[in-house]
Amino acid sequence: MRMVDLIEKKRDGKELSQEEINFIIEGYTNGSIPDYQMSAFQMAVFFQGMTPGETANFTMAMVKSGDQVDLSAIEGIKVDKHSTGGVGDTTTLVLAPLVAAVGVPVAKMSGRGLGHTGGTIDKLESVDGFHTEISDEQFYDLVNKNKVAVIGQSGNLTPADKKIYGLRDVTATVNSIPLIASSIMSKKIAAGADAICLDVKVGAGAFMKNLEDAKELARTMVEIGKNVGRKTMAVISDMNQPLGFAIGNALEVKEAIDTLKGHGPRDLHELCLTLGSHMVCLAEKADTPEAARAMLEEVIANGKALEKFKVFLAAQGGNASVVDQPEKLPTAKYTFEVKAKVDGTVSEIEADSIGTAAMLLGAGRATKESTIDLSVGLILHKKIGDNVKKGEPIVTIHSNSEENNEVIKRIYESYSITHEHVERPTLIYDEIKE
Amino acid sequence: MRMVDLIEKKRDGKELSQEEINFIIEGYTNGSIPDYQMSAFQMAVFFQGMTPGETANFTMAMVKSGDQVDLSAIEGIKVDKHSTGGVGDTTTLVLAPLVAAVGVPVAKMSGRGLGHTGGTIDKLESVDGFHTEISDEQFYDLVNKNKVAVIGQSGNLTPADKKIYGLRDVTATVNSIPLIASSIMSKKIAAGADAICLDVKVGAGAFMKNLEDAKELARTMVEIGKNVGRKTMAVISDMNQPLGFAIGNALEVKEAIDTLKGHGPRDLHELCLTLGSHMVCLAEKADTPEAARAMLEEVIANGKALEKFKVFLAAQGGNASVVDQPEKLPTAKYTFEVKAKVDGTVSEIEADSIGTAAMLLGAGRATKESTIDLSVGLILHKKIGDNVKKGEPIVTIHSNSEENNEVIKRIYESYSITHEHVERPTLIYDEIKE
Repeated sequence: MRMVDLIEKKRDGKELSQEEINFIIEGYTNGSIPDYQMSAFQMAVFFQGMTPGETANFTMAMVKSGDQVDLSAIEGIKVDKHSTGGVGDTTTLVLAPLVAAVGVPVAKMSGRGLGHTGGTIDKLESVDGFHTEISDEQFYDLVNKNKVAVIGQSGNLTPADKKIYGLRDVTATVNSIPLIASSIMSKKIAAGADAICLDVKVGAGAFMKNLEDAKELARTMVEIGKNVGRKTMAVISDMNQPLGFAIGNALEVKEAIDTLKGHGPRDLHELCLTLGSHMVCLAEKADTPEAARAMLEEVIANGKALEKFKVFLAAQGGNASVVDQPEKLPTAKYTFEVKAKVDGTVSEIEADSIGTAAMLLGAGRATKESTIDLSVGLILHKKIGDNVKKGEPIVTIHSNSEENNEVIKRIYESYSITHEHVERPTLIYDEIKE
Repeated sequence: MRMVDLIEKKRDGKELSQEEINFIIEGYTNGSIPDYQMSAFQMAVFFQGMTPGETANFTMAMVKSGDQVDLSAIEGIKVDKHSTGGVGDTTTLVLAPLVAAVGVPVAKMSGRGLGHTGGTIDKLESVDGFHTEISDEQFYDLVNKNKVAVIGQSGNLTPADKKIYGLRDVTATVNSIPLIASSIMSKKIAAGADAICLDVKVGAGAFMKNLEDAKELARTMVEIGKNVGRKTMAVISDMNQPLGFAIGNALEVKEAIDTLKGHGPRDLHELCLTLGSHMVCLAEKADTPEAARAMLEEVIANGKALEKFKVFLAAQGGNASVVDQPEKLPTAKYTFEVKAKVDGTVSEIEADSIGTAAMLLGAGRATKESTIDLSVGLILHKKIGDNVKKGEPIVTIHSNSEENNEVIKRIYESYSITHEHVERPTLIYDEIKE
């Protein structure tokens, strides 16, 4: 088999066999296929796409390129949730204890990552003492006992995906739905998920800018799941503005606590209940999303979800008293209110731009070496469709610096205020199942 | 400027500026742009094509990547001829003395190359004493004096093209018309041509298998010529079977002599007169192809073309008496006649396969290190549309080996003989001018 022939085959729109796809992924991972052939192949995939069969084989070949997590020591159906990214997404912090409270095992492997704010582990480290350096056995035991635990990523998972992603990034081949879908799914499968609940974001602040692309990405991932025996479903949700009010690490932990108490931001609350219902169904703890939703609403109302969060934090060394006294979370030295300059209705909040404002405060990492300031961030007071009066606060900045001109400038730039009527954006656009 | 942005621009079907194309070619030639970005770019070009302006800029950027031959010391309009390749193409050997005989300066820079037979220089070296190791000054002087000389390629011409071609070859991006066109044209322009006459081959034995592709390649090259100020025209000619009867080095020299005497194979004669007429017009030695053709027919009839060949050979050390006594050319030890097994009409001669038969005899180079046997080759006695009788010779093998089973097998495989009526293929399909 010669790589040049496989590039040509894909270039000409023909379907590659499993053996051929394995040859490509194995060869690229071990270095026998050079970058220049892989990049030509990826560009051919960009134009010609991949069939569902090819995409599934591509995904599994990447899974097999490295270690695979074995979660069989944990009882029940392990459901993982994945979001395609956005700004101010606090869902994981809410969902982990929420679905665990109704008996769904949440064995979360998480990372730190680059972005506007930290990853889930960074956010949780806002809770004094909390740590994820636990052994695999402790991890299994905690999930079996409490139904929820978080461990830092270890092992060499999907090295093929890492190498391929690095190459796509510099060869203008990131934007290919089968390549995006197989990258996401390979990581979830290698991390040991039995079932996968996907939150595909769509809108100005998301990677997928329009609904059709988001649906196609969702369908492609659900199809991969089906083809490789991992039950998968996807929710398509809005990212035309940040989710919830908080953007920042400790600020999002506080917002998660509010949501678990039942008085979080409307959109965050609703998305968590939607995703959570599907997770409960995937874990076969309820027959219908409606029944699952009722179970989740109950554990919010009766405090069991909040209690689960405390147990989870304490089990990994965290000071669970923050749940009742959120003021114990890291707090920035200064707060500044950014006030509306005109009367009107918010018509746009550029999520990327406001995310960058949070990053300028120190809430996120620009490079792997950056240090995160857990205390800083933004609280939005106005979202799309809200009326504002001139002088009314639209955003509160939590900063450890007295000088925040650049941050303020970005906030003003990202907010558009109009005199016309503005509809609130739809939160959930669609659900894609097998 | 970042290469990844330029790949994306081309991927999305946008037009690159001259500055952007120069950045790509310069960067790739000097190594600052890696192979993996160039191969992704080329695959994007495969799918999105290039505009005439981009193709012209791409060509000139490759020309400027290395040395450029300056032929200004030679009087008149220097017209170069280029064929896109095929089997048994003896046109250069005929055309050089033929058009020189009517005053067109032929300053031919030629190579050895890989293929079924040698390059023009190899073929000419069949003439005892002939050599192309002459200085640039001798070369200019000879062309000014005799109107024809051949020099071996020297200098570092179009290094960008060499590097790009090497990469295309292993990344399934050879088959892109703008890339093929710019590769050919860059070499001709760097070699100093004022005007270019292209012979674009089409058919089973050519790189372009169908007329539409051949026309598009021709149009693209003519357009490049127009955009960079080199008058260019193209003839589209048949390569569904080998041109002429001879395939081999000395055998083709003998065939060229026959053609210059006016009794060469009909197709070779006709193609040489067609291409030659256009070369004469491009050199502004005649106003119409008809007038040019009459001039060429005259120098064949009155012996001046043949005389020019003798002068040309002698001027570069060759024993010109071979022209009158072709038996002095290298001769193979053995000849074998391959005879028809059935009665009928020749319907197909697979040019590639019969070319490989010649190569098996030693007529061509498989690798740069191969040595060529100038004496060996094939003489076809039957071409498409010819009637044959069982037992009649279809091909004569000129070999230095007594064992030729593989060659004979290939010859039988390449000939198809039918009982149905067969039309002779069209020789000249089209002419493309500005």
